[in-house]
Amino acid sequence: MRETLADWRPAVDEAIADLVPREIDDDYLESFFGSPTYEYDSTGIQGALSTPLWDLLDRGGKRWRAVLFLVFVEGFGEDPAEYLPYACIPEILHNGTIIVDDVEDGATIRRGEPALHRVYGRDIALNAGNAMYFLPLKILTRDPADLPADRRLAAYEMLMYELNRTHLGQGMDISWHNEREVRVGVEEYLEMCACKTGCLGRIVARLAAIITDQPPAVEQAVANYAELTAVAFQIGDDILDVEHSLGRAGEFGKEFGNDIREGKKTLMVIHAVEHSEPERARRLQDILEADDNTDADILEALSILEAAGSVDYARDRALELAADARAAIDGLGFDDETNRKLREFTEFVIERDE
Amino acid sequence: MRETLADWRPAVDEAIADLVPREIDDDYLESFFGSPTYEYDSTGIQGALSTPLWDLLDRGGKRWRAVLFLVFVEGFGEDPAEYLPYACIPEILHNGTIIVDDVEDGATIRRGEPALHRVYGRDIALNAGNAMYFLPLKILTRDPADLPADRRLAAYEMLMYELNRTHLGQGMDISWHNEREVRVGVEEYLEMCACKTGCLGRIVARLAAIITDQPPAVEQAVANYAELTAVAFQIGDDILDVEHSLGRAGEFGKEFGNDIREGKKTLMVIHAVEHSEPERARRLQDILEADDNTDADILEALSILEAAGSVDYARDRALELAADARAAIDGLGFDDETNRKLREFTEFVIERDE
Repeated sequence: MRETLADWRPAVDEAIADLVPREIDDDYLESFFGSPTYEYDSTGIQGALSTPLWDLLDRGGKRWRAVLFLVFVEGFGEDPAEYLPYACIPEILHNGTIIVDDVEDGATIRRGEPALHRVYGRDIALNAGNAMYFLPLKILTRDPADLPADRRLAAYEMLMYELNRTHLGQGMDISWHNEREVRVGVEEYLEMCACKTGCLGRIVARLAAIITDQPPAVEQAVANYAELTAVAFQIGDDILDVEHSLGRAGEFGKEFGNDIREGKKTLMVIHAVEHSEPERARRLQDILEADDNTDADILEALSILEAAGSVDYARDRALELAADARAAIDGLGFDDETNRKLREFTEFVIERDE
Repeated sequence: MRETLADWRPAVDEAIADLVPREIDDDYLESFFGSPTYEYDSTGIQGALSTPLWDLLDRGGKRWRAVLFLVFVEGFGEDPAEYLPYACIPEILHNGTIIVDDVEDGATIRRGEPALHRVYGRDIALNAGNAMYFLPLKILTRDPADLPADRRLAAYEMLMYELNRTHLGQGMDISWHNEREVRVGVEEYLEMCACKTGCLGRIVARLAAIITDQPPAVEQAVANYAELTAVAFQIGDDILDVEHSLGRAGEFGKEFGNDIREGKKTLMVIHAVEHSEPERARRLQDILEADDNTDADILEALSILEAAGSVDYARDRALELAADARAAIDGLGFDDETNRKLREFTEFVIERDE
């Protein structure tokens, strides 16, 4: 096993380049997508698929989903290097969702550079993002690890389960975003995270369990670990946005109070609306709804969250979820090194900005 | 068997409503998507999934893909009514691609009403369209016809093959659209159609063959039929746009010369660029490239296509492809009624506007 988790990144990128080379030619197209009936246009496909995909990947990203997959595979007693193509499945899916989400949100910046749809046009970006939903699923058919048919089918059925729920989660999040009032409670918020963010984590864990032929209880346990970690991560992300903003009060930068400006219904917002005086709750929702907030409005919203104890509440929930994640894999019999790495993921969730 | 093909439409819509009810509740969500970890927000999911999906379906559409699937199933000697949920797979996929394509193209109108992203916002429309890529694939896991595991796996592997190629075809089309020059030839154009439009037809045919357990040669033959028919259909569509425009010369309506205005590299354009004097070919490309064409410019482009014999050429190619489609299913031993219906699809391709 590599010494640190980050050591895997170059190997993951090489495995992705085996699936989608940086330079596309007819031989690659024939071998990956099948013979053309007439004639492929490799130049067009280069510009529509490989160039935008590698532009996004080369901007960074820690390939955590691929690395977590490899940690599980090693924890299950198999050689991670043999399963590198499968590690690319959640990683390419994840990057595809980033491109599509940015189109949905009309995002301007991604990983410090213009969002892909601003570089290549909405049509190319969207088609590349959607292609990245199906390209990784083909890996199971190519079957580099020579898996028996029942495991390939189980992997497809698992992927269909999780990818359907991903779109439910995204659908809930978008719906709320477009609503004036904070209509939902904590349980719906956690479900949205479990579906939208958690399902991709569950794919990582379940895929590792399925291809190494683990019993259902183990697959279930690692799926719970991954879902809980992802939900905690999502809450941690929202907390960071608030803390970052409070720390920057008065700096008047673009980075200040992003989630409030976007009107995001975070766990903190839901908690604050439930636990504030009616007029303060009303004021918070008005600020979230408005398009033309001043920095003073943003600070006021942040102070309503703080005064309601919502930041502390969210941090407690995130820590609790991370602890539940660690408990979920207790007793699975992983070696100490694997347990240490899996704990590290759950700690990173809350502490990554410190 | 229903007397005419159109008689199937209400049964298809009922089958789709079994998969995505017009009114969504928690019971449905649990049974289709699985138990929530916390709590679903059925109101949000109603607005994000069911409402936009049924808005699009209720605007019309002939459900040809579902009907063609049922014709094949009956031709293979099975009861089509038993396989209605599977008929929804290509139909929901097709309608999902319509929503996504409209976002990619920035289309304003769809089936006589504002495109979905103009009614519900780009985020909701896009997420609904993408959800419709995965929702139908779940039908195989739900397995209403109790298929053996090998056929379910074969269906998934077929779908991954075809859906990957769909995105290649769309990628080629978009790339050319964004290019100044007509760079590609007839073979690449036909490949783009075979991938972009043909693969969904191939899904219809291959799915019917796989779930009724036909031998590989039969699956291949019906796939060829469907691909050839789809390519002929695409060319027929482009011809109709030109003929419609020529018939309307002087009417100065929005519907006049759409494909020229959009700069589409159709088979006729590719042929005309190859077979016109260099200055006429240059002029055609300049008109395709320009954003501010007058009606006179459009008419000039149309006349270049006519003068080069490109409309006749395209019609001949489409008729030839339709004949090849009919030949592909010769000798498969379908009953006369099935053969008649399958011929009807290939004739509809060219003659639908007469």
